[in-house]
Amino acid sequence: MGEKLNKDPYAELGVSSKKEGVHKATKNLSKGLYPGAFCQIVPVSSILPGEVQDKYVQVIHSDGVGTKSNVAYIAMMEGMGTDYLRRCPQDALVMNTDDMACVGITNDIYISNHIARNANRVNDEAIAEIIAGYSDFYQKMADLGINLYNAGGETADVGSYTTTLGIDVTATAMMEKSKVIDASNIASGNYIVGLASDGIATYEDRYNSGIRSNGLTLAINSLLSPYYRKYRETMDGTIDEEKLFTGKYRLENKVYGDSNIADLILSPTRTYLPILKDVLENESIKVNGIIHCSGGGLTKSINFGENVAYIKDNLPTAPIIFDLIQKERNIDDQYMYQTFNMGIGMEIIVPTLEEAERVRSIANNYGVSADIIGQVAKSNGGNVVEIGKTKKIVYTK
Amino acid sequence: MGEKLNKDPYAELGVSSKKEGVHKATKNLSKGLYPGAFCQIVPVSSILPGEVQDKYVQVIHSDGVGTKSNVAYIAMMEGMGTDYLRRCPQDALVMNTDDMACVGITNDIYISNHIARNANRVNDEAIAEIIAGYSDFYQKMADLGINLYNAGGETADVGSYTTTLGIDVTATAMMEKSKVIDASNIASGNYIVGLASDGIATYEDRYNSGIRSNGLTLAINSLLSPYYRKYRETMDGTIDEEKLFTGKYRLENKVYGDSNIADLILSPTRTYLPILKDVLENESIKVNGIIHCSGGGLTKSINFGENVAYIKDNLPTAPIIFDLIQKERNIDDQYMYQTFNMGIGMEIIVPTLEEAERVRSIANNYGVSADIIGQVAKSNGGNVVEIGKTKKIVYTK
Repeated sequence: MGEKLNKDPYAELGVSSKKEGVHKATKNLSKGLYPGAFCQIVPVSSILPGEVQDKYVQVIHSDGVGTKSNVAYIAMMEGMGTDYLRRCPQDALVMNTDDMACVGITNDIYISNHIARNANRVNDEAIAEIIAGYSDFYQKMADLGINLYNAGGETADVGSYTTTLGIDVTATAMMEKSKVIDASNIASGNYIVGLASDGIATYEDRYNSGIRSNGLTLAINSLLSPYYRKYRETMDGTIDEEKLFTGKYRLENKVYGDSNIADLILSPTRTYLPILKDVLENESIKVNGIIHCSGGGLTKSINFGENVAYIKDNLPTAPIIFDLIQKERNIDDQYMYQTFNMGIGMEIIVPTLEEAERVRSIANNYGVSADIIGQVAKSNGGNVVEIGKTKKIVYTK
Repeated sequence: MGEKLNKDPYAELGVSSKKEGVHKATKNLSKGLYPGAFCQIVPVSSILPGEVQDKYVQVIHSDGVGTKSNVAYIAMMEGMGTDYLRRCPQDALVMNTDDMACVGITNDIYISNHIARNANRVNDEAIAEIIAGYSDFYQKMADLGINLYNAGGETADVGSYTTTLGIDVTATAMMEKSKVIDASNIASGNYIVGLASDGIATYEDRYNSGIRSNGLTLAINSLLSPYYRKYRETMDGTIDEEKLFTGKYRLENKVYGDSNIADLILSPTRTYLPILKDVLENESIKVNGIIHCSGGGLTKSINFGENVAYIKDNLPTAPIIFDLIQKERNIDDQYMYQTFNMGIGMEIIVPTLEEAERVRSIANNYGVSADIIGQVAKSNGGNVVEIGKTKKIVYTK
């Protein structure tokens, strides 16, 4: 009983979702001070005074836009301008900041950016747009009282292994030990509040499809038409081209109101920082765990807590982009939920229904829909994620 | 008079050494607390107590192996094993740590690593070797009393824009403000001590060619034979293949003692941390500036100090690898010195001859050759680097 997390819809696209050998190699490396926390938490520098070392910890975190940048590149090549490229830094930033928010960091984050490019395809003007995109997001966050500090960066011309461009960020921040959210506190009886990844938050300018930055290789190749095979630099040369760009859409096709496919795929990853900051500052909410539904989608939580079952039986209907992806490539439900966030970008796990309602209400203040998507139960054999109300999909670890 | 730094031997290899548009885009970003320092230095987190914020600063720095990893990849494909891959993390680490050492940080450095790979070409076992390479270097430094702290990392499968692999690091550390080395203090009359990039330091296991991690795209394509054009995944698809792999060497060709071409190209970037730590802890040496001869090679110093001329008239003979590169591609001297370190990986600039001698002697304790390669003079119109004794090459900014 229970489907193991071992089917790999990605294998044929050159993405190893399991990386067992990598996990084996890193298994003996330190997991930091809170092995059950969402991010690795390490001590602060030993040159600081003893009482500062006792009181504070830090997180250093790396992540990036991934293959989403290829779509922005194609849009530029197709004459749709560089505005889509300019949206990409938000993806790179939020993939870091919102992981860090899961341990309780929602402010004073230092950013180092790294761009790897093929200089003959991605020129200085395109890089300038990307750099401007970083500043756009810093400003937007500053307006909300959240300080992201630009601490430098690098643009590397590495065309001999980069065909288009990679946009990555390393973020670092300190926090008080006493405020660390350690997901190992997640316990039976807790409520799971899911924050919507789609819609328009008060701090967003346009409709967000909710795709965020995970599952993009599958999304891109499911949705976009073989027309784009002319951009061989965006295709993994080790993959049979018949498997790539198998969809029916062109970037300019309008599929949802004014949003075309480019808008849906390139919706910048929504940050939940303003919401999480308010939640964590609210003294009448105790937070046991926060799970960013990144790699692993709605099954990400399976890695946190001990002998717990995440019963997610009240999920909202998934946003349109996931429906399009699923239909275009005929992907089964089980694959979809373990690959994509399916409309829930962040899960906040709290002890009581009242606290869950308070979280919901804070999210709503920012125009972000939120649902109590389920509860945590006891499991007798390792962690479990159970999805659905009538037809249940069960994942075991 | 004076050659401007505007010839670009790299342009035909898809590497923009000037990146004028990028510099223009970043011009208005903050240069940090010490605009004349070698690295951007930023405040510490504002959540720390006021007196800690007053006393300490931090650096967050990103850099990587660059195209050197392609050679390790080719060596693996040619049946030479994965040991060369395992040496690459040292390059990624030292490109960060030794930049940071230039502002005075020589200990307690936190490391986040980032690997971008094509998973069908670089498998989990290869990644495991790379991760082991990180641990190797941490251990080696720990044995020398230098603490590098693994703070996490990521392996991203991004085969749709990465043909082989990219190995990058972000490093972060704190330091006392009072100990910051601000290269804007470099002044007329100062002495320049150059630390050798080649040879065998007491903390190295084998001959180091001194190539370090800059100029590698030019080095690789100058030295390696057209035989390697079969690895199209290591060739920039935007470049005419006749310009790539134009050399006469195969990786296994012995060219210097027991060292073959793979050993020379893949010599791990030497760290000067142990030497610089001793120099900076020595109270009878005042250090005005430290310049890591990375991008820009022996002309890197031109960016530091004001209206100064770096007169480098006592350079040692360049190590053999630079000679091989120069001859194979018929590169003129001017190009060579502005692209490669030519045997001097680090320059330490001190007020007096006595202090210069003390630095030399500390380097020698570690088996690293050192020379007083020249002096700083006054310049009347912007910074200048002058190289050579009889036939001088003059670079202006």
